[in-house]
This record gives sequence, C-alpha cells and structure tokens, in this order.
Amino acid sequence: MAKVPAETQAIADDIRSMRTRGAGRIARAAVKGLMIATEKSKARQVNKLLQDVALAAQILHETRPTAVSLPNGLRYFYTRLIAKAEQIIKIGELKKEANKIGTGFIDMSNNAVKTIGEIGARLIVDGDIIFTYCNSATAFGVLKAAFSLGKKFTVYVPETRPKYQGHITATWLDKAGIPAILITDNSIRYLMSRADKVFVGADAITANGAVVNKIGTSLVALTANEARVDFYVAAESYKFSPATMAGELIEIEERDTAEVISQDKLARWKHVSVRNPAFDVTPPEFIDAIITEQGVIPPQGAIAILYRAFGWYSTEQVLPWEEYLEKRS
Amino acid sequence: MAKVPAETQAIADDIRSMRTRGAGRIARAAVKGLMIATEKSKARQVNKLLQDVALAAQILHETRPTAVSLPNGLRYFYTRLIAKAEQIIKIGELKKEANKIGTGFIDMSNNAVKTIGEIGARLIVDGDIIFTYCNSATAFGVLKAAFSLGKKFTVYVPETRPKYQGHITATWLDKAGIPAILITDNSIRYLMSRADKVFVGADAITANGAVVNKIGTSLVALTANEARVDFYVAAESYKFSPATMAGELIEIEERDTAEVISQDKLARWKHVSVRNPAFDVTPPEFIDAIITEQGVIPPQGAIAILYRAFGWYSTEQVLPWEEYLEKRS
Amino acid sequence: MAKVPAETQAIADDIRSMRTRGAGRIARAAVKGLMIATEKSKARQVNKLLQDVALAAQILHETRPTAVSLPNGLRYFYTRLIAKAEQIIKIGELKKEANKIGTGFIDMSNNAVKTIGEIGARLIVDGDIIFTYCNSATAFGVLKAAFSLGKKFTVYVPETRPKYQGHITATWLDKAGIPAILITDNSIRYLMSRADKVFVGADAITANGAVVNKIGTSLVALTANEARVDFYVAAESYKFSPATMAGELIEIEERDTAEVISQDKLARWKHVSVRNPAFDVTPPEFIDAIITEQGVIPPQGAIAILYRAFGWYSTEQVLPWEEYLEKRS
Amino acid sequence: MAKVPAETQAIADDIRSMRTRGAGRIARAAVKGLMIATEKSKARQVNKLLQDVALAAQILHETRPTAVSLPNGLRYFYTRLIAKAEQIIKIGELKKEANKIGTGFIDMSNNAVKTIGEIGARLIVDGDIIFTYCNSATAFGVLKAAFSLGKKFTVYVPETRPKYQGHITATWLDKAGIPAILITDNSIRYLMSRADKVFVGADAITANGAVVNKIGTSLVALTANEARVDFYVAAESYKFSPATMAGELIEIEERDTAEVISQDKLARWKHVSVRNPAFDVTPPEFIDAIITEQGVIPPQGAIAILYRAFGWYSTEQVLPWEEYLEKRS
Amino acid sequence: MAKVPAETQAIADDIRSMRTRGAGRIARAAVKGLMIATEKSKARQVNKLLQDVALAAQILHETRPTAVSLPNGLRYFYTRLIAKAEQIIKIGELKKEANKIGTGFIDMSNNAVKTIGEIGARLIVDGDIIFTYCNSATAFGVLKAAFSLGKKFTVYVPETRPKYQGHITATWLDKAGIPAILITDNSIRYLMSRADKVFVGADAITANGAVVNKIGTSLVALTANEARVDFYVAAESYKFSPATMAGELIEIEERDTAEVISQDKLARWKHVSVRNPAFDVTPPEFIDAIITEQGVIPPQGAIAILYRAFGWYSTEQVLPWEEYLEKRS
Amino acid sequence: MAKVPAETQAIADDIRSMRTRGAGRIARAAVKGLMIATEKSKARQVNKLLQDVALAAQILHETRPTAVSLPNGLRYFYTRLIAKAEQIIKIGELKKEANKIGTGFIDMSNNAVKTIGEIGARLIVDGDIIFTYCNSATAFGVLKAAFSLGKKFTVYVPETRPKYQGHITATWLDKAGIPAILITDNSIRYLMSRADKVFVGADAITANGAVVNKIGTSLVALTANEARVDFYVAAESYKFSPATMAGELIEIEERDTAEVISQDKLARWKHVSVRNPAFDVTPPEFIDAIITEQGVIPPQGAIAILYRAFGWYSTEQVLPWEEYLEKRS
Repeated sequence: MAKVPAETQAIADDIRSMRTRGAGRIARAAVKGLMIATEKSKARQVNKLLQDVALAAQILHETRPTAVSLPNGLRYFYTRLIAKAEQIIKIGELKKEANKIGTGFIDMSNNAVKTIGEIGARLIVDGDIIFTYCNSATAFGVLKAAFSLGKKFTVYVPETRPKYQGHITATWLDKAGIPAILITDNSIRYLMSRADKVFVGADAITANGAVVNKIGTSLVALTANEARVDFYVAAESYKFSPATMAGELIEIEERDTAEVISQDKLARWKHVSVRNPAFDVTPPEFIDAIITEQGVIPPQGAIAILYRAFGWYSTEQVLPWEEYLEKRS
Repeated sequence: MAKVPAETQAIADDIRSMRTRGAGRIARAAVKGLMIATEKSKARQVNKLLQDVALAAQILHETRPTAVSLPNGLRYFYTRLIAKAEQIIKIGELKKEANKIGTGFIDMSNNAVKTIGEIGARLIVDGDIIFTYCNSATAFGVLKAAFSLGKKFTVYVPETRPKYQGHITATWLDKAGIPAILITDNSIRYLMSRADKVFVGADAITANGAVVNKIGTSLVALTANEARVDFYVAAESYKFSPATMAGELIEIEERDTAEVISQDKLARWKHVSVRNPAFDVTPPEFIDAIITEQGVIPPQGAIAILYRAFGWYSTEQVLPWEEYLEKRS
Repeated sequence: MAKVPAETQAIADDIRSMRTRGAGRIARAAVKGLMIATEKSKARQVNKLLQDVALAAQILHETRPTAVSLPNGLRYFYTRLIAKAEQIIKIGELKKEANKIGTGFIDMSNNAVKTIGEIGARLIVDGDIIFTYCNSATAFGVLKAAFSLGKKFTVYVPETRPKYQGHITATWLDKAGIPAILITDNSIRYLMSRADKVFVGADAITANGAVVNKIGTSLVALTANEARVDFYVAAESYKFSPATMAGELIEIEERDTAEVISQDKLARWKHVSVRNPAFDVTPPEFIDAIITEQGVIPPQGAIAILYRAFGWYSTEQVLPWEEYLEKRS
Repeated sequence: MAKVPAETQAIADDIRSMRTRGAGRIARAAVKGLMIATEKSKARQVNKLLQDVALAAQILHETRPTAVSLPNGLRYFYTRLIAKAEQIIKIGELKKEANKIGTGFIDMSNNAVKTIGEIGARLIVDGDIIFTYCNSATAFGVLKAAFSLGKKFTVYVPETRPKYQGHITATWLDKAGIPAILITDNSIRYLMSRADKVFVGADAITANGAVVNKIGTSLVALTANEARVDFYVAAESYKFSPATMAGELIEIEERDTAEVISQDKLARWKHVSVRNPAFDVTPPEFIDAIITEQGVIPPQGAIAILYRAFGWYSTEQVLPWEEYLEKRS
Repeated sequence: MAKVPAETQAIADDIRSMRTRGAGRIARAAVKGLMIATEKSKARQVNKLLQDVALAAQILHETRPTAVSLPNGLRYFYTRLIAKAEQIIKIGELKKEANKIGTGFIDMSNNAVKTIGEIGARLIVDGDIIFTYCNSATAFGVLKAAFSLGKKFTVYVPETRPKYQGHITATWLDKAGIPAILITDNSIRYLMSRADKVFVGADAITANGAVVNKIGTSLVALTANEARVDFYVAAESYKFSPATMAGELIEIEERDTAEVISQDKLARWKHVSVRNPAFDVTPPEFIDAIITEQGVIPPQGAIAILYRAFGWYSTEQVLPWEEYLEKRS
Repeated sequence: MAKVPAETQAIADDIRSMRTRGAGRIARAAVKGLMIATEKSKARQVNKLLQDVALAAQILHETRPTAVSLPNGLRYFYTRLIAKAEQIIKIGELKKEANKIGTGFIDMSNNAVKTIGEIGARLIVDGDIIFTYCNSATAFGVLKAAFSLGKKFTVYVPETRPKYQGHITATWLDKAGIPAILITDNSIRYLMSRADKVFVGADAITANGAVVNKIGTSLVALTANEARVDFYVAAESYKFSPATMAGELIEIEERDTAEVISQDKLARWKHVSVRNPAFDVTPPEFIDAIITEQGVIPPQGAIAILYRAFGWYSTEQVLPWEEYLEKRS
C-alpha cells in the first residue's frame, strides 16, 4: 500500500518532536505536508487521491492530537479539497486547485498577525491607557501597529509569574519605543481603574467563546469587566478549537513547581505543597470582542468563524478524512 | 513650663525612630507614655493634670502623624480620662483610674490577636478550603486557633509579589502542621472557584468600612465576591482610622522599583518604567464581616466601633487633647 | 385534486390526537409522513411532486401548529427537497434523494439523545457535584454516559413541584446506580454553593438563545449564575423554535390548580386563588452552553444552528411549502 | 446555698420541655423568671441580690442554650439591673426598678408584632403586588395592618415545601379578606418580575445583618434583588443573635427526610438519599431594611440595635451574669 | 393657659408661609423659636418649663409637618433639654443650659456647609474628573474648598431638566474659576467612563441610608456604580429623616407639567400626558459615603448619626415633647 | 474610458449633497444607481460589465464614505452580481438577474419598517408599560402595529435633549391614538421600575452587536437592565456596519453647543464650556434582541446577518468591487 511522501513524513516528525513549534508554524507545516502528499500522489482517480491525502492527514494529525491549530489547518485544506473534488474530474486540475488552497492558507496564516495588528490598531485612540498580559505576538502586533500610525498611548505590563513573560513584552515595547510600565500581577485591580482597553492573546478559543490563555488572564478580564474597561483578545482564527464543539475539555496543565519556588525551599516544608497551573479560562461575558485576521467578532460568534473556515463540525465523524481512510483499507 | 517625663519622651523617640514598630506595639507604647505622664504629673488640680497629659499626647502624636493605631491609643486613654475627670475631684483617685484605663487598653491590645483567633476559628468548619493573603498575624491566628480545635481544612497561600510574604505565611502554616498550598498571585481566580472562605488582615480600616491592606488584597476580594466565597478581614479595632472620618485619604505608598525587578535589567530599558504600589483598598461591599477583638462586625458598622472605643470623632477639633493644650499655654 | 396518501393522513391523525407524543417522535413521524407522500406521489414533473409534498406538509403542520419540533422536521425535509429539485430533473432520482434526506433526519433524531449524552459526558470530571432539574431524557443521558465512562459524581435532584418529576429522575438515577440526593425546590440556593455544574433539558429554545423549560429552571439558572456554577442545557437541535425568529412569543401555559392543592382545600378559601404556570424562560446570559447533537454551542449561536439545519427563516413567507401550495390551486 | 424560687424553676422547666415555645413567649417567660427571682430574693445587699438573680439567669439560660431570644431577654433585664444597682443602694427601691425593667420588656415584646405591623404598613401603597414566604406572624402583621388602613394590594404566597406553611399563611390572609395567590416555590422567579415588595419574617439575625429564616427565603431574596423588588424582613429586635458577634455560626438543622418523601418510596431507592435543611441564610446585600419594633433599620445597622437594647457584647465574658455567679460561689 | 411668645409665633408663621425657606434656615429658626420660648417661660418648675417649651415645639412642628430638618432641629434641642432637666433643678441654670444647647445647634448648622466642604475637599486629588448634579450648596462647597487648596480638577455639570439648575451650578463654578463642562442629562453614561468621583447634595436621607434628591440623581449614581466611579453625597446631618425610621415613605412630589413642555403644545395632544416627578431615591448600595459636618459615614451608618444627634427614635411616641404636652393639658 | 450613466451620477450627487437622506433612502438610491449602471453598460463581456458597475460602485461609495447603509446596499448588489457572473455567460441574461437582485433589495428595504413592525408587535401584550427613546420610525412602527392589532399598552417617551425628538414621537403616538406619557430624560430610572419592555431604533450596529444610537440610549438600556426590563432594538439589517468588522470605530460626533444652551448665556462664562455628543454606544449585554426585517436576532448574532446578507467581509480587500476596478485600469 502506498505510503506518504518522505517530505510529508519529515514534516510530521518535526511536529511530533517539537522541532516545529508555535500555533502558526505547526498549522502551516501541516498544510504544506498535505500539499506535498497531493502533489506527489500517483492516484489516477479522484477518490484514490483523496484517500492518499487522507492518510497524510491522519499521520500528521496523530503527531500532536491535542494541539489546536494542527487539526484546523488539516481540516481547512481537506474540506476544501473534497468540495473541489465534487466539481473536478481531472486529477491534474484538482492538484492545481489543491495547490491554490494550500497556498491561500499559508499566506493567510503568514499575514494573520499583521492583519490582526492592523485591525486592532484602529481600536486604539490617543491618550489610551492599555493593559496587556503575558507575552503575545498578536497583542503586541496590535500595539506596534497603532504606534506606527503615530498614536500615543501607555501600556501596563504585568510581570506574569512564575516565568516573567511580562519582561519579554516590556523589552519588545521598549525596542519599539512604546511607553510602558511594568507591574506585579497583584496590582492589576489598583491600576485598572484608569485604564481604557486591554489586549491579550489566546492559546485556544472554545466552542462557546471562552478563551484559554496564560494563567491570570481571566483575572485581568474580571478586573476589566468590573471597571468597565474594554477587553479584547487578539487571536488567529485557527486558535478556535473544533474539539470543544464535541464537549472536549481543554485540560489545564499543571507545570513544574520549581518554576514557583526553589526546590530547596520547598523541601524544607512538610505540610506545604505548590500548585502551578499554566492556563485559565476567561468566560465570554468578560470579552468585548475577539480580533482575528478575518475581522472583529463577538466571542459568541466564534462558532460561525469555525464553521466557515474549517468546515462544519460533525460530532459523529470527527475528522473529515476518516471516511476516505475507511474506503482506502 | 513643665515638660513630659523622660520615660514618656523616650517612648516617643522610639516610635519616631521606628525602634518601636507594628500597629499593636505602637499603640501600647503610646498609652504607656500617657500612663507615665499621668502618674508623674505634679499637678494638684484636675485641669492641670489634663493639661500635662495633653502635652504628652501631643508629643507622642507628632512622632508619626499618619500612623493609624497611634492616635487610636491616645484617644482611647484621653477621652476616658476626661470622662473620669468630670466625676472625680481628687488627683490621687483620678491617677488610679487613669492607671486602670491604660492597663485595660494594654491588656486588650495584648489579647487582641488571641481573641480574634478564637472568634474567627468558630467560622471555620471541617473540609473548608480557605484562602489567605500576604502575611498577617491576625489572619494566621484565626487559622491556628481553628486547627488547635481539631478542625480539618486546607489553606491556599498566594506568594504575594514582590516581597513574597506568602512564603513566610507558608512557613508559619507548615510549622503549625496546617496543610497549605503555595500559589502564584495570578492563579487566584482559577483556584478560587472551589474555595469556601478567605481570611486576610488589614493595615487600616476607613470610616466607610473599606480596608487598606497589601497590594492584591482587593483582587482576592473581587474574586471571592464573584465566586460567592465568604471574605473576612481579621483586624484589631485600633486599625480603624479616625482621620478618614474627616475625609483624610489613606495615601497608597509607591515603594522602591528594585523590589520588582533588578536595577540592572531596568537600566537596559529606555521606555519602560516600573510601578510598585504597596497597598490597595478593598471596598466594603466585598467584605462579609470584620473580625475584631470586640466581635464580628459588618464593615459598614466599623464606625460604631470607632465611636464606642475611641470617642466620638469631632471634625472640627480633631484631637481631644487640643482644647486642654490651648488652655495650658 | 390528489389527496395525501392514507399512511400520511394516519400519521397526521396520530399527531393531532396526541397518540404520537414527544418532540422527537413527532418530528420523526412528520418526516416519515413526507417521505411517504413523496414516494407515493404520482406526479411526473418535479414541480407537481413538490406540490404534492407541500400538501402533505400543510396537513401535517396543522395538526399541532404550536409544537416546536413538528415544523422543524417538515422544514428540514422540504427545504432540502427543494434544493435537490433544482439540480435533479428525473422524478425517480429525486425520490431516491428524498428517501435519503428523510432517513438522514430520522437517524440523526434517533441518535440525538445518545450523541448529546456522549458530548455532555466529556464535560463531567471526577468529584463533580451536579444539579439537574425536572425529568429530562437528554440531561439524564449526559449523566448516564458519564457514569458509564466510570466517572464519579453526585447529583442533586429537586423534586419539581407540583408533579414531582424529580422523583422519576431519582428513580432513573437509582436504577443506573448513580449516587443522587433528592431535595425540595426551595433548598436550591442553600445547596448550590458547593456545586460544579448543572445539566437540564429544554422544551424550546428561542431565536435569541433563551430556553423555555419546566417552571423553576430559570431559578436554578439564576442560582447557578450567582454561585459561578456552569449551567448547561442538553437539547436536540429541533427544539429551536423558528417561529420566535418572527417574534412569536412562546406562551406559558397555566395548568390545572388541582395539581397544586386539593380542590377541597381551595374551595374553603374565598380570597385566595392559585396560579400554576408550567414553564419559565431562562435568559441566555445564564446559560454557559447548549449541548446539541450537532455540538456544543453558545446560546446566542443557536440561530446559526437553526439556519443551517432548517433553512433560512423568511419572515414574510413563514413556511417553505406555501409557495408550492399556491401554485397548486 | 439559696436556690431559685419555685416559680422561676417552673418557668425554666417549661422552656426546657418546650411547653413554652416561640421566640416572643420564651423571652417574656425568661424575663418573668428573673423578675420573680428578684422579687423573692432574701438578699439584704445589692451584690447578694445580683448573685441570686445571676443564678436564676444561669438556670434559665441553660434550658435552651442555642435559642436566640432567650439570652436577649435575660441580657436585657440583667444589664439594666446592674446599671441600676450602681446607682441604688436600697434593696426595696432596686426591686421596684427591677419590676419596671421587666414590665417594660414584656410590654415591648407583647406589642412588638403590632408595632412592626404599623411601621411596615406605611411601606405599602395601593396597587402593590407583594410576596411573602412561609408563615410569619410579623410579616402577616404588616399585611394585615396595611389592609386595615384600606390599602389595596395582592399577596403571592409560595407553598413552602415540605411542610406547606404557605397554606397557613393563605388561610390567614383569606380570613382577613386579603386577596392572595398560592403558588409553588419554583415559580417565584417567573412571577416576581411584576412584584413591588417582599415581606418575610426571621428566625435569627446575625452580627453582620444576615437573616436566618425558613429554607427558600434566600432564594426569594436573590430573585427580588435581580428584579429590583424591595425586600423587607419583619422581625422583633430580640431575633438578633448576640452569639454571632463572637463568631458562633447558626447551625442549619437538617430535618427528618420523611417530611420530603414517604419512607416507603425512599426505601425503594438504593443510591438516592434525601436532604432536608430547615433554614438558609440571606446575606445583607439582598435586604433593603429590617423592620423592628424599634424602627426600620438597614441590616448592617442591626449591630447598633443589639448594643443598645441588650448591652455591649463582650467577646471574653459572654454572659453578663457570669461575673456575679463566680463571686457567689 | 400660657401661649407661646410672640417672637416664637412669628418664627412659626414665617416657616409656614415659606418666608423662611431652606433646610438649614428652617432648622435654625425652629431652634431659635424654642430658645425664645424657654427664655420667656414664666414657669417656676422644671416640669412646667418643659411643658411650655413642648407647646412651642408642637406649634413649630405643625407649620410644615413633612419637612425633614424641622423636626430634627426641634428634637435636637428638646431631647437635650430633657436630659439637662433631669440633672438641674434651678430654672435659671436650666435656661442657661438651654441657651447653650440652642446656640450650639445654630453654630453647627451655620458652619455645616463649610465643614462639609473642608472634609470633602480632602477626597479630591489633582487631575480628578468630577461629576456633580443639579445645584447643591454642600456639593459646591466641596468643590470650592478643594479649588481653594489649589487642587486642579474639572467638573461635569448635567443641565438638570426641566428647571436647568445645572446652569446655576455652572455659573457658581464659573465665578469661582473652576473649569466646568455643561452637558445634557442623557449624556451622563457616555461621559462617565473617564470620571473619578461624583459629589451631589441631598434633600433627605432615610433610615436605611437611601438618599432622596433631585430627579436624576439615582441615574447618575447607577451610572457611577457601573463605571466604578466613587459616589459621594454631601449633606448636613439634619437631612436624615427620623420619620422614615417609623416606616414613613418620603412622598415623591409630581410638579407642574408646564415645567416640562409649554401648555400650548400639551393642549394639542389628546392621548399624551406629562409626568414631572421632582425627586428620586438613590439606594445605599450606590453610595460610597455620605459627607456630613459630623464626618464621613457609610450610608448604612446614617442611623447612628440620627440616634446620636437627635435622640433615639421611639416608634410609639414619635415626638419627644408629646409626653409633656399631655401632662400639660 | 467609459463613464457612469448620467442618472447614476445624479443619484450620487443627491446623496453627496444630502438631498437624499435617511439610511433606507440612501441604500435604495445607491442600489438603483448600480441597477442603472448595469442596464446601461455597453460591455459585451461579463468581466467588462463587472468593471463598469465597479466604477459606479466606487463613485457612489465615495459620496458619503462613513454612512452605514450605503456600502451595505452596494455590497448586497455587487456580491450577488459577481456570484451570478460566475454562472451566466450571456450579458442579457446577467442584466436580467441584476435587475432582479436590485428590485429584491429595494422591495425588502421598502418593506423593512413594516416587517419589523409586524415582528415586534408580536412581542407586546395587553397591559404592557413600554419605554421608547428619541424618534425612531422602526420603533414607532412596532408600537403602531401592535396598536393596530388592538393591544392595549402605554408608552413612556423621554423628551431627548437637546433637540426634543421625543416631542415628535409623542405627536406620532398622539395621532395614532396610542396613550403616551412625555417625561424628562433624567426621570428614566424612577419610572422604569414598573416598565415591561423598551423599543428603540439604531443608527448603526457594530460587529460585536453593540448599538450606536442617539445619546442617552445606553442610559435607557443600563436602566432597563438593572430593572430586568426587556430591551429591544428595532433596526433594518443594513444598519449593521461592515467596517467595524475591520476594527473601524464609529466616531461619536460632537454637535454644535448652541443646541444645548444659547450662545449668549455661554458667552457669559469664562471657565465653563459645553459638550454635546450626538450618540452613545449600547453594549450587547444590555440588549435582549435586535428586531430586523430578517427576524429577531441576539446582538451577538448580528454578524451572521451581516455575512449572509452582504457577503463575507474580507479584512484585506474591504470592498468587493476593488478587484474589478484594478483590472479596469
């Protein structure tokens, strides 16, 4: 039985071994993998071609089954390929279309942070006091784009314990010349009362519009909500998690306690342990809008984005290529 | 003109130079200073005695005019001394009463943490999940007293950046054998949802029942309020600030930025500064009750405690001894 | 003029006389009725066929014009039939497609409770304290599916006056071996504070995501909202009411007062009457998500489900078959 | 050593055996017991008299140590007796004053429900839609007084499961000619939206202004709060619990499960149990005012009532007579 | 039977005919009336003197029975007179004390606005954006006092329809040199989001801490509450209404419709009427503190002020002088 | 190069010069302009035709680039034209389809107010107390349609300063015979407590479901939300602003201060200025539903309407005709 091309297999290996990291890079690599599988397929019938690509999709999907952007990239490509396959009979023509689909996704993904920045920048006005949190390329992109337009504003940057990602954000802002103020995480409520807007990133967005992001994000959101400060999430559309449509919970990882306190100190305690959750969940009622490369959407409208971009989610047949895999065997 | 006794002056010097520190110790020292001034006074008339003590009160008060417990101790003693002076003519008898008043205050103050612990402990039941914050002797006293009664519970301890006072609290709990979990400050909302009660201390309590305490306290309170978790403040009654009755704001000190980030790192930034506020203000609507040595009171009832314990607050004549000082000169 | 087949008429009669009851059964019967009308039509032109089926749709629809699932079933079938009729010219082929459409709906409906159970079960974790309300097959399905996966949890069951449907739920849970606690309806707030999740069913879902369900459901939802407990509605997608898109209110039936108090007792009172509303309306802001067989959706996203599954709702031409009926006469 | 008079002992026995029941009756009986003990004391010194009465207070107090009105009655009498004893030397004169104190309390108590009715009635206006809950003499007193003044209003009466005390209230309203509507407890939110005011009674009021009352009261309060409906508690001042000042929790009794479901039915279940809590706690933020015989007060001001009427609560020496008991032995 | 002195009667006439207007002026005039009645009384016994003054109190009270400051002034004087009368036997001495009491009240009242200004000014900091509402001497006093201290701030002034009292406030601020911005009432929410504090006056304060003030005040308070802006009421202590302790409602006057629209225009409508309520009620949960000349108090603590300044309110015997009037006849 | 037809140019001129005003009229005129441009095009190729119409679209769009309905009308027509152009090769046939598209839009727009009225009227029941605000044809349409159905209700009409549009609404209601009550804007909260529903119009609806409307609308919404009164927005679907999808803020115009106060008066002030914002923004959480001619939708679902009716919004290529314009040159 035909295997997937070596390049596709190499892409899968790089994702599995985490040589390829980051939501955007993973999604683009996966789509690249499918493009190659399509191109190199020796199938002479459309159905056979779909089966070959389905195998590639399966192999790529299994590299990191809980990643959020990976299945989105695969679904984006594969559902569009199926749609085209219903209209086109000639293999050569279909391969051309497949190439267009894949290139379209990769371009969109490559431009996503920039597009989000341009959109988000329009929401900032002179004199704004802005909060960000942790270290997010998309949220920073918004700030940088607004600054490039000559807008004047100040950014509060909580340090984000235990790993101090706020220091990285502060350094980015400093390099960009944007006035910023570093603060401890626990001073958020005290300083929020004079703020105007919050921009944060996202690790994943769930079916009902909740946002999974670095621990503390929901605390910033709660505080912004109390003070009537606008709270925006800047996130690429492939951060939406289709698995949550089927009720899958996003597991909140508990990380090494050594990040919080030195193991020497911890060893001296008999009755004290440490918890170090990596993420928390911000409910949709605290989020004014999610800024994606597809536009500004209310969190409850996330589902529409999901459907349009990545195909309607079937709760029974979770992955669109499974049907073709079965035919294959 | 007569001066204050040397011992009284020494007490004043110790408070000014911060050799005498801590709300309780300052208040007791100040009352001791007035007791000595009363005892050593050579006045033969009640009015003259009151003037001598007024001078001592003034000198002691000026050592740290913005301290909260200092004027409370002085007012406690002096208003009661005036009241007795209206009934008693003999100097010797009045001095005896003054001694009783002072001893009463010092005993009450010495026992306050213990009494608060006993009262607060009754609010804890088996199985409770409890949050505390920063490092408070009164809040810890509540936990320890409950544990001594054999109650089983677990305590979450936020680390309290930038100075990690949570580590001290964790060590205290560890020594007491109370199961505890150290966490970063930003994981409060994530972990609060299963909690039952919060116990924190206070630096000062204002006329309208708001609580000034370590930065982040209001964030814990907001989070507890959102999750319908009871929020208790454990504080001695002399933490109530009479000056706030006259509209005085409690200034929120901004501390050294070196506590938040190394000065080396900070120096590398041109556009990033640091803010390090030491306290924040928790509004009364987030506080279920304040546990004092005088009993459990709603925050809005703080004012009644203030009046009863330290004399009705006159907005025009801020300090009860001023009238006697004027007569004196 | 041609009539509808006898079997279709019999199905209509059974719905009207309430021999066929329950949202799912009614919807499936109605679709079955249309399938038969299509199959048995003697029309030789596509348009004539559509007219025949339109007549069947009208007759079936009129049996219970205020039912929610009935028009959804009819719309599901008929809008898809029209779409196919635009592409297919041969009657025989169209009939085959119609058969597929109908079978698809009936399968989906038959599996809906099971699918909802599987999806909802993923939201439950070990140690959960769960509330349910009244007696709902979909909500019970979630609990049973989670229990089958070996998850450990406890369920609070309010008795649900006046008809004590909570007793039935308790019996179902008992048979399934799931630990449960029966309570009176008025103890919900007292016991909610330690709960984690709520699962209830729905009688109907409105255009703006509000849920119509047994009286008291909105009280459970309000209480869960206050205590930051997740509130989930488990409901098949045909519970979404298309009529509410056109502003139709869902009437809240007032039932026999004899359910609330014996008529003997009531007769003894001159100035006291009884009200016995059967349903109430839970606003979308109290609902974290609706679990349908199509996936987990935010209540405000219900409208998207409605459009996709049952055709875009036209406010002017309420029923898709009316146009064909007019042509017919 | 002298004993308490036989009549006092008989009163104590009646309270212990629950022949004397109800907050008002118990408090009045207890004061009567102290009046007799004072009158019959053979002491010739004021201090001895106080010791005799202290013994009576102790005996009466021990009959039902967790009752709320009992210690309030005893404290009312005894703290005033001590105050008088500081001014009066002659036993005969002191006994006369004691008689006045006791009579004053008993009159106040006897008139309390009537006075509360008169005060509360002023809050009702023509056209009001009013909710009550359970069966409260004070709340009913308000309604009856308003009706006697010719005011026109309607009263919703939840049935109050499991014991249907709402039926009693409905009967009282019916006899009084007041239009009323009996409803199930779970329809409260549906029907609250058009209401104007709620009047309920109280079993106890805590130091921070929370109200302990029949299970479901806090649900009515939450619902009223959501709908911006005024929520009033009608309660005699001796319902304020001084023990809660010292942190004592008011235990929520769990009553016999047979009240909720027949034991036959219950026996058929293996995995289902029943909980039947008798009371819940309404937080002060849901209460607009407490109507006492001393006037309308905000719940957070309850503490002031407590202090004025029953003596300042000492957290160390819980009962004012203990000091005299110790001297006695 | 003795009448009241002519001067007292003249004062009463001036209050009744509204020649004497304004809460402060009325209260001072009434106290002056009692001072004269005391001074001119020919009584030779304390009790007779009290009866003479009681008559004056009654006559003065009846001039405007629903005014709030009038009974407060009378109660202030009379309850203190009774207290002195218990200690002093000599008529001459008692008259002297009465003079002191009256003078004390009049001085306090005359200085109240100034004292409130000084206290409130401490709550303002540089850069504040402040809202006021309608035209209040006490609220303006706060702003002016802060400005005199050199503080820099800006004041938003809603115009306050229908009588445009905001124009008067704007003129006062303009004369004082304080930067101000006049706005329409309906732009409050739009402009509130950047504000820091609100200062308004009060017509009356009720027993549970609610504030009766010009229509629209509660709208400003609701908006400030939503935006986490501090809301302060600046009011003399005699604005507290003792009658509300007995459940008396403060009637909301409906004023002439001609204030809202010209009668010509109104006459042209057949189905349109006009409502013009003069006041609304701001609930205590929207008020951060009430600034009185006695200090800053939480609204729920208003009751304590009432008791201390004007005597404990007896629900049965509403006016302290009635007892003496009865003796008189 | 070909120009646009003279009639199209005339339509553009009328929009620019504001001879054509009102959201509906502008949209319909613009579509008419495109219909003419299509009809009169001399192109013989589909692509050329599209280019000609693109030029017309550009010219019409530039007349008032910030209007909301203008681009919606243009997008409606042009995106459908493109879709048809993909299927149809013959110019004549395509022109026919273009005519159908344009006529369809114009009919829908002409009927929109009527349709909205019919839908909204179903939400009104006998006895309702309803608030409206400012002067909205759609909101009035709802009231009139309900009244025509014989429903009995009363309408509160705030006057809407500074231009008193409430007077116009009152006159409309009067002519229709609908009972109404004119009030000042600041009495909204006082009178809202007994209301049942609010109906207002909209100037624009943003991507996340917020509503831009006359200043004060958000105040009415906040007040309705506090009082649990349903808040409905009646608006044609072309009020949805596609530009907000790309982050464009809707600028809140500040109008002439002479509307608020006479310039004479204003000139007398040195330190007082005037602000006169024309609109405010009501957040989606205050809106129960938006009533459009396409049905009742939750505000968060607005985005779905936008996509379906006016084409998916591309953040990079803002206007669908730009691509064809580029080809043209």
